[in-house]
Amino acid sequence: MVKKNKKKSCAILIIGNEILSGRTKDQNVSFLASWLNSNLGIKIEEVRIVPDIEKEIIKSIMDLSKNFNYVLTTGGIGPTHDDITAKSISKAFKKKYLYNAEALNILRKYYGNQFNDPRKKMAKMPVGSKLIYNPSSAAPGFIIRNVICLPGVPLILKSMVHNLKKYLKPGAKIFSESINCQTVESKIANELTRIQNKYKKLVEIGSYPFFRLGKIGVSIVIRSSKKNNLQYCHKDIIKIIKNKKIKIIKGI
Amino acid sequence: MVKKNKKKSCAILIIGNEILSGRTKDQNVSFLASWLNSNLGIKIEEVRIVPDIEKEIIKSIMDLSKNFNYVLTTGGIGPTHDDITAKSISKAFKKKYLYNAEALNILRKYYGNQFNDPRKKMAKMPVGSKLIYNPSSAAPGFIIRNVICLPGVPLILKSMVHNLKKYLKPGAKIFSESINCQTVESKIANELTRIQNKYKKLVEIGSYPFFRLGKIGVSIVIRSSKKNNLQYCHKDIIKIIKNKKIKIIKGI
Repeated sequence: MVKKNKKKSCAILIIGNEILSGRTKDQNVSFLASWLNSNLGIKIEEVRIVPDIEKEIIKSIMDLSKNFNYVLTTGGIGPTHDDITAKSISKAFKKKYLYNAEALNILRKYYGNQFNDPRKKMAKMPVGSKLIYNPSSAAPGFIIRNVICLPGVPLILKSMVHNLKKYLKPGAKIFSESINCQTVESKIANELTRIQNKYKKLVEIGSYPFFRLGKIGVSIVIRSSKKNNLQYCHKDIIKIIKNKKIKIIKGI
Repeated sequence: MVKKNKKKSCAILIIGNEILSGRTKDQNVSFLASWLNSNLGIKIEEVRIVPDIEKEIIKSIMDLSKNFNYVLTTGGIGPTHDDITAKSISKAFKKKYLYNAEALNILRKYYGNQFNDPRKKMAKMPVGSKLIYNPSSAAPGFIIRNVICLPGVPLILKSMVHNLKKYLKPGAKIFSESINCQTVESKIANELTRIQNKYKKLVEIGSYPFFRLGKIGVSIVIRSSKKNNLQYCHKDIIKIIKNKKIKIIKGI
């Protein structure tokens, strides 16, 4: 469906005033990032959160869909006045915003004689969209060009991701290892820089201080699409930790 | 410090591979959004999450600092190789990336004879920056032009926000009310649309389905900078809920 080119892998666009106001904490980014990587080797390379304002959604969709292979949106596809994702994307892509016959059928069956106008709205989308089926609450997501629209409610979103697979071209799975050790970042920073330079472009090393379970420490996270490189880099890091007599913390 | 103009209020730029990979869940957006609104009447109007890649950080800083009154960054100001926020912002603003004398002093006092090169790096920032003091772990944040750089570790960030106040010009506080009721969105969608049209530009009405504590319902959230408008709108919504004999759920 999407040409392989120099675009970046995947972006997420979160649409919703409730996330920007601090009322609701986003839970979808970490789920989607982990799921996409472990199931499809697809990497999230940018996330944006924008309000329920048509021109902001249009601007972000146009920008992200141009620069990424895939754009996943969350939120704004329900029945109320503040659900304007489908309409905004229609405008961004200059597509008509019309009822999708298959979506109407699905929703008519699900709601029976309770199928009112606000529920009908959930079948309106850009012409040419394909549906992402929703086993939780019927109202489907959709894909148009390289933009995939999912709901914002985490439970419903999670139930739908398996229906995405057929639209996404797998990439190289990223393997990762974590080493948690009882130290502070500045005691290992020079050595990590040296090892990162040795494995430039082969392994990505991240260093994250933590304060949890009554312990202060550093998580060193290494990530690579090549298992071999990951293992060599892991050995090098373990070596410097042992040389410096730093304790490794297990079980966190 | 920053001219009042047609720019949007405030954006957050989260810098960190660990958020994009799904390893770490961001906790700073909801805290900063709530804190900025209740303490200063400043509204977050966009969030971006970008990786630890210099050109991506530079691009976002240039774009956001042009379009928003304030840009708050989180992450990437520690001692390790993947902490490149200060250097990237120096490049974005074509400022020299040098040791800040006051920051060096603070860190030298804090670390004493443990003041090594990686720790010194935390005093390097764009020339002309002012410091945001850090009562938890000494290493300061900084402000340069309209960009304010904070650490990513939530506990440390929280301890620093009071030191931000003097750099931010207060806006109009946004008041909000929530009504949680035992219904589904499509049963009240038409009425909410009508009320939203009545209070266009005066009150922002959000509708959020929830599934929690064994209950299915809808949170209607109304937000306004004018308390009066909020109260009138609140009354209108309560009226339609009562008319439809929908139960209001308290205590969630």
